[in-house]
Amino acid sequence: MVMRKLNTSPISGMQEFLPVDQVAFDNMKNIISEVYHSHGFQSIETPTIDRSEILFAKAGGDTEKQIYKVFKTAETADDADQALRFDHTVPLARYVVEHENDLAFPFRVTQIGRNFRGERAQKGRFREFYQCDIDVIGRNTLPIAYDAEVISTYFSTLQELKLKDPIIRINNRKILSGFLEALALESLSEEIFGIIDHAEKVPPETTKEALEDLKIGDDAVEKVLAFIDIHGNSSEVEKKLKDFDFGNETFETGVEELLFVLRLLEKQGMKDKTIADMMIIRGLDYYTGTVFEAYLKDYKYIGAIGGGGRYENLAGHFTDQSFPGVGGSIGLSRLFYVLNENNLINKSEHKPIDFAILPLSENEFEYSFELSEKLRKKGKKVDIIFSGKKLGDKFNHAGKIAKFAVVVGEDEVKTKKLIKKNLETGEKTPLDA
Amino acid sequence: MVMRKLNTSPISGMQEFLPVDQVAFDNMKNIISEVYHSHGFQSIETPTIDRSEILFAKAGGDTEKQIYKVFKTAETADDADQALRFDHTVPLARYVVEHENDLAFPFRVTQIGRNFRGERAQKGRFREFYQCDIDVIGRNTLPIAYDAEVISTYFSTLQELKLKDPIIRINNRKILSGFLEALALESLSEEIFGIIDHAEKVPPETTKEALEDLKIGDDAVEKVLAFIDIHGNSSEVEKKLKDFDFGNETFETGVEELLFVLRLLEKQGMKDKTIADMMIIRGLDYYTGTVFEAYLKDYKYIGAIGGGGRYENLAGHFTDQSFPGVGGSIGLSRLFYVLNENNLINKSEHKPIDFAILPLSENEFEYSFELSEKLRKKGKKVDIIFSGKKLGDKFNHAGKIAKFAVVVGEDEVKTKKLIKKNLETGEKTPLDA
Repeated sequence: MVMRKLNTSPISGMQEFLPVDQVAFDNMKNIISEVYHSHGFQSIETPTIDRSEILFAKAGGDTEKQIYKVFKTAETADDADQALRFDHTVPLARYVVEHENDLAFPFRVTQIGRNFRGERAQKGRFREFYQCDIDVIGRNTLPIAYDAEVISTYFSTLQELKLKDPIIRINNRKILSGFLEALALESLSEEIFGIIDHAEKVPPETTKEALEDLKIGDDAVEKVLAFIDIHGNSSEVEKKLKDFDFGNETFETGVEELLFVLRLLEKQGMKDKTIADMMIIRGLDYYTGTVFEAYLKDYKYIGAIGGGGRYENLAGHFTDQSFPGVGGSIGLSRLFYVLNENNLINKSEHKPIDFAILPLSENEFEYSFELSEKLRKKGKKVDIIFSGKKLGDKFNHAGKIAKFAVVVGEDEVKTKKLIKKNLETGEKTPLDA
Repeated sequence: MVMRKLNTSPISGMQEFLPVDQVAFDNMKNIISEVYHSHGFQSIETPTIDRSEILFAKAGGDTEKQIYKVFKTAETADDADQALRFDHTVPLARYVVEHENDLAFPFRVTQIGRNFRGERAQKGRFREFYQCDIDVIGRNTLPIAYDAEVISTYFSTLQELKLKDPIIRINNRKILSGFLEALALESLSEEIFGIIDHAEKVPPETTKEALEDLKIGDDAVEKVLAFIDIHGNSSEVEKKLKDFDFGNETFETGVEELLFVLRLLEKQGMKDKTIADMMIIRGLDYYTGTVFEAYLKDYKYIGAIGGGGRYENLAGHFTDQSFPGVGGSIGLSRLFYVLNENNLINKSEHKPIDFAILPLSENEFEYSFELSEKLRKKGKKVDIIFSGKKLGDKFNHAGKIAKFAVVVGEDEVKTKKLIKKNLETGEKTPLDA
C-alpha cells in the first residue's frame, strides 16, 4: 500500500485546480486581459513583496490584520521590514510616484495578478486570489469621460466572458453627500451610508427601522427611503433627482457627473445595461465621485461580481503630488468559484489538449513527430502518448485531457490515411493533416 | 516643489518594468506558454504560499537559507508554519501526490509563475523571478522518448522566441557515473563532478590542476580530460564513447539512452542544434539520467539560459509511490535581463498600444467611441485621449505608448476621412476603419 509521508493538501483558503479547471480559469483570465488591452490599458506588474511601511500606509482595521508579513530564514542587513501586497492599488500608488517622469498621463493601466489576505477561510473567499484591475490615473486633473471609459471597458469584459445579462449599476457619491448636506444629516453620514450599503441584504423594514433608530424624524426617513429607491436610465433619474431641487452644489455636481457618464455610455449602446441606482455606495471606501457595481441579472443573489469608482487622490500617503484616478476590479478567483458552483462554466469547450497522438510502437514515433508538427503549425495543442500502455489505456488517458485521439500504426504510416476520434461523442472522421 | 513622503523604489532585487518593457516581457512569456501548450503540456498553478514542512522537505544548504517565511499580522489557530515557494518542482511534487487519482500519467505539465529566493541582490539575479517550467511525470515508469520530447519542446520555444542560434548541449549522468565506476573513482565522484561542472568557467590548466590535486594518477587525469572533451552529433560521439569499451553497465545504459534521445531529436531536424557534450553536468542536483543546457551560440559568455533533465523520483519526500520525471526550465526574469542588457529586445515591435485616438473636443467623443470599437473588433489596442491637453501634448503622450495616432475633429466626423500618423516615422496614411 502506498503511504503518504506528509499532508499534501494545499493550505486552507488556497485555490488549486486540476488541469481541466485551470484551462477554463486561464481562458477567463486571458479574455479579461485582451479586452483590457483592446481598450488601451497598459500592463504593469509590481513585486508581490513590498516594504511594510508602503503597504501599511493606507491599510487599516481588518485589512491590516490580514496582511502577510515575510522574512527570510537567514536575514541579511539590507532587508527592510517586508510584506505581501493585499491589493493592486497601494503598489500602483507607489509605482506611479516612483515612475512619474516616465509615464504619460492620463495613464491607463491594468494589473492582473495574485494578492494576499489572511482572512479566516470560508466558502468562495480565498487567501491568495486573482484580481483583474483597470485604472486611469491623471496628474492634477482627470476628465470625467474616463469614468465612462472604465465602465465601458468593464462592461465589454463581462460581455466577452459570455456572462448572461450583466448589469452595471452606477451612482455618484457626491449626490449622496449633497443629499445628506441638504437634509442637514452630514454628521450621521457614516451611519446612513452604512445602512444604505446593507439595504439590499436585509428586508425593507430593517432598513426603515435602522433609519428610525437614528432619530432623524419621520420626514427625513421617508426622504432617504424614497431617495435610495431611485434608479433607471439617464432621463428617468434626471427627472426624479432634479425634483428634489435642493439648491445644494455638491448634489448638483454629482447629478451632472452621473448624467454625463450615463449618457456617454448610452451613446455607446449600453442603454438598459448601465443603470443609475442611488443604492450603490461601494462600502465606506475611498471613493469620492462615480461608483459602480456589476451584477448578473439572473444571479443577483450571488451579489456584486465587482465594481469600482473615482478617487480623488491615489498616492496621498506617498507624495504631495495629486493623482486623481478612476478604476474597476474583477475578483476573478471568487467569480470563477461562484460560476463553477452554479454550473455556468462550459468545461467541455476548454480541454487542455486538442489532439492526442497514439503511436502503436516505436516504429511510428518519427511519423508521429511529423504529424504533430503539422497540427501545431495549425495552432493545435498536441500530446504524443509514448507510454507502453495498452491501446485501451491510452484512449482512456486521451479521454481525460484531449478533444480528439489519432492512432498511428504501421498502416497509417504507409497510407497516410488518418482517422480522428472525437473523444466526447465517439464519432470518427478523416483527419486532414 | 513636490515632496515624497516615503521611499517609493521597489525593494532591492525586485524587477519592476515600465509599460514599454512590460509588454516586451509579457510577449516572451506568452510565446513560451503557447509553445509549451502546443506540445501538449497542461497548465497548473500551485499556491505561492505552502506549508514550510513541504517546502523545506527537499531544500537544503543555501536554498534553505533563502526561503521566505510568511506569517499573518493577526495569527489564527488554523495557520500552519508557512513559506513562499522557491521553485516549481517541490509544489509540483505535492500536487502530483495530492491529485494522483485525477491525473492521467504520463502527465505533461507546465508551470509559469513567480518564485522567491532571498538571495543577496546582484546584477541579473532577482529575489522574485519568473520560471517557465515543463515536466513530464510518469507513475512507476516513464519512457525515455519523453526526454527527447522535453528537449524538442524546449528548443522550439527558443526558436519561437527568435533567439539567434540556440544550441542545446545534452548529456546523460549515467555515462559520467559509469565512467567513474570504470576508473574506480566513484568515491571522488562529488569532487570530480564539481570540477567538470566548473571546467568551462576556468582556464584548462586550472581544471587539470584541480584533477591532479585529487591524486588519481596521470593516466586517470588524462582520461577524464579526454572524456570531457567529447562532444558532437550522435554518430560522432557514438564512436568516441564506444572506444572506451569499459564493459560497465551503467556507462553502456547511459550511452544507449543518450544516443536514443539524440537520434529522436535529429530525426526531427535538430541535427547541429542538439549536441552531445560530456561537459554538461547540471550542478550536483537531483538529476539521474538525461541532462541538458541551452546556450546562444553568439552569446555563450552569458552562460546557460536554462536547462533540465531526468530525475528518478519526484515526490520521494512525500510518498512511497514512485514518480519518475523529466523537465526543463527557462529562467525568464534573468533571460529577459540579459537580452535587454545586450540590446537583443526589439522594443519598437511591442508598443503597448496600436492606436491613440485624439478627439479635439467633447463633440467628437461619440465618433471616437465608434471608431475605436471598429478598430478593437479588428484586434487593435486603442486608447482615446480625452484630456484637455493641447494637441501637441496629446501627440507627445501618444508617441510614448502607441504606434499610430488618429486626430478626430469636426471635419473628420463629417467626411469620415481619417488619417493615421505613424509615430515612429511621422508618415501619414489614410486609415480604413
